[in-house]
Amino acid sequence: MKEITSSKNEWIKTIKKLHRKKHREEMQEYLIEGFHLVEEAVNHSAAIRWILVTKRGVNEWKEWLEEQDTEIIVLVSDEVMKSLSDLPTPQGILAVVGMPTISEELKDSFTGSWLALDQVQDPGNVGTMIRTADAAGFTGVIMGEGAADIYSTKVLRAMQGSHFHLPILTGDILEMIQAFKTQGSAIYGTELNDEAVEYTSIEPQQNFLLIMGNEGNGVRQDILDQTTKNLFIPIKGKAESLNVAVAAGILMYSLKK
Amino acid sequence: MKEITSSKNEWIKTIKKLHRKKHREEMQEYLIEGFHLVEEAVNHSAAIRWILVTKRGVNEWKEWLEEQDTEIIVLVSDEVMKSLSDLPTPQGILAVVGMPTISEELKDSFTGSWLALDQVQDPGNVGTMIRTADAAGFTGVIMGEGAADIYSTKVLRAMQGSHFHLPILTGDILEMIQAFKTQGSAIYGTELNDEAVEYTSIEPQQNFLLIMGNEGNGVRQDILDQTTKNLFIPIKGKAESLNVAVAAGILMYSLKK
Repeated sequence: MKEITSSKNEWIKTIKKLHRKKHREEMQEYLIEGFHLVEEAVNHSAAIRWILVTKRGVNEWKEWLEEQDTEIIVLVSDEVMKSLSDLPTPQGILAVVGMPTISEELKDSFTGSWLALDQVQDPGNVGTMIRTADAAGFTGVIMGEGAADIYSTKVLRAMQGSHFHLPILTGDILEMIQAFKTQGSAIYGTELNDEAVEYTSIEPQQNFLLIMGNEGNGVRQDILDQTTKNLFIPIKGKAESLNVAVAAGILMYSLKK
Repeated sequence: MKEITSSKNEWIKTIKKLHRKKHREEMQEYLIEGFHLVEEAVNHSAAIRWILVTKRGVNEWKEWLEEQDTEIIVLVSDEVMKSLSDLPTPQGILAVVGMPTISEELKDSFTGSWLALDQVQDPGNVGTMIRTADAAGFTGVIMGEGAADIYSTKVLRAMQGSHFHLPILTGDILEMIQAFKTQGSAIYGTELNDEAVEYTSIEPQQNFLLIMGNEGNGVRQDILDQTTKNLFIPIKGKAESLNVAVAAGILMYSLKK
């Protein structure tokens, strides 16, 4: 097993750069931390490049590590782990994972239930919505321009591995809408006001696209103009609005057959 | 208008202590920050003790401030505001608010729809659930032992003023369950497994108590033993579970008539 004890090691420095979006995109790789996420990555055949583990971690996950390809396991000192970790007390395991390539075929023929995020900015909200889409049995998620980067630590933490379970595409939502329409799927936008249709009036269905918008501004008007219907969730009390991830959960579970 | 320019001022130091739970409980007061929350507090007749505002804030919210009791407005320097603020760039206004006293009558006769939180620990989850209860038209919220403190900055931020809209009681959930049963209300626990009833099988109703549990462990078994029925939300994809605040939103909107 390869061993690295200094956080000044050049290879470690390169890996550390994966905390920045620019470098993740250049290298087409990202970091995941904690045993649960690393295990999920292996179980769902993600492209794992390296598993970095501390001595204590080797003892703790001994059996599991023995089942992995030893060529990609690197033993690191606590100091190295700390320099790479995003947590106050690192668990002692992280992995470098290659970003998945999305087949072009998928982009041309959308079937099933999809969630699109238009400029949703809070990483916790983005991660939670992808996790909910997974739980609700959605087919995939579309990240429009201006949405939080799904490979940032905060989104990865909130997703809890759901990005290993369903495809997450990036692209222009207006273009995607046309592709969905070609398939005959309904497109549902969401509005923060009641100039829309109450969500409970829509029957559960299998093929549709649900679009959630920015925390403050909602879905962009040019997108709302292209939908089949725009939905709202009634506010019965004195709150001004719902948290976008909660609203997405209510809509996804109500719309999905 | 009273003016304070030094963050070493004794009165300012006392106010700063309100960032700690112990002192909030001793003084029965808490801090809110930002114009939106302060305005909500005034609109809902909260017991505002002091409004602290910077010179820039005085200009920005001039008209609104003129309508307030000038006796409680204190002009503070940017340095003082920074020492009290929890934000990287303070808006320039905060208020000291007295905690509400809950009438004993309310505790003896629960009617309507209530949400109870059993050991929910993440402040963002707690705040979001209270905001959703408000939006869904719930009557009130019960904080069981071990739940995050609702007067902490993070919970206040996620609640977005909903604690001014509906009563939030603190107490022993098992005792509260008995009071609800006396009123003839149904008690719904939530389970993370499918040893429970699917939530869609419950008809929307007006009088009930919904209990949400800890992020990792769910609702305590001794509470689950006392419920009318325990509910679950089906997981149709590969996610292990839903975020508790999302689950609470789906259940509240589905159960509430």
